[in-house]
Amino acid sequence: MPSPVTQPVFRRATGDDVPHIVRLLADDPLGAKRERYETPLPTSYDEAFAAIDADPNNELVVVEANGQVVGVLQLTFIPYLTYRGSWRALIEGVRIDSRLRSSGLGRRLFEWAIARANERGCHLLQLTTDKMRPDAIRFYESLGFVASHEGMKLPLQGSPDAWRP
Amino acid sequence: MPSPVTQPVFRRATGDDVPHIVRLLADDPLGAKRERYETPLPTSYDEAFAAIDADPNNELVVVEANGQVVGVLQLTFIPYLTYRGSWRALIEGVRIDSRLRSSGLGRRLFEWAIARANERGCHLLQLTTDKMRPDAIRFYESLGFVASHEGMKLPLQGSPDAWRP
Repeated sequence: MPSPVTQPVFRRATGDDVPHIVRLLADDPLGAKRERYETPLPTSYDEAFAAIDADPNNELVVVEANGQVVGVLQLTFIPYLTYRGSWRALIEGVRIDSRLRSSGLGRRLFEWAIARANERGCHLLQLTTDKMRPDAIRFYESLGFVASHEGMKLPLQGSPDAWRP
Repeated sequence: MPSPVTQPVFRRATGDDVPHIVRLLADDPLGAKRERYETPLPTSYDEAFAAIDADPNNELVVVEANGQVVGVLQLTFIPYLTYRGSWRALIEGVRIDSRLRSSGLGRRLFEWAIARANERGCHLLQLTTDKMRPDAIRFYESLGFVASHEGMKLPLQGSPDAWRP
């Protein structure tokens, strides 16, 4: 495992990254209940990647350091009539390798994502974060995010009982 | 203005609906600061509508009653790797004509949107609502939404100072 991280690269994910991303998603107290990091991976992961990759308004971004995927987030760009017709960016699925948390890598990933959202002409970047993640909330506030809204979730038919949304 | 509403129709918006939708968006204490409901409309509204309409993962939905547009919301369907590869639905830009609030129309619009999100195979429906809208929060809770997350917003370069995200 790289330590210190010298030259992280921020790039669009490829299909080959999917198992490494799933490892990151599963390595988390909430994520462990939701994901299945096993060999072979459930094909539903590859199907979801194909849908993301085919959509010009979705970008799955990874951080690579010393040849390993050590961070991930997904950007979605959405056109709205609100704010006189405008684009927003949404971030979901943020993870940093547990061995590299508090290393500054998450901040650099977000700075990259903020620049990308500006480049796409978005006037607002938004995300929701579980109220059970106080450290994450403080991190986002340190980047300038304001917790002005309630993030409300409604499980639908496809939602297993075991999953907390 | 129709009262009572007898046969509301829920349907995808067309370009002809845009001025009527902007009227709804502007007729709101927060929306009034952000929108410009004037003739002619700023072309940015039509540009945003074209982007929404061209995207198979975005659906702008209106409620029509007695020939008038009296409600609107936007659904976005997003594929994610999380939850073993899954789709979520996001709702934004919800408005019901001020003369028809508390009439049950908002509930019917949401029931329609929930059914549509199920039809698209989504496991979760999510939205953020301004903490300054306590009535809206209670309404969403009555539909089963849980305020489990903080809704965090970061204004970007294109955001006029006057706008609260």
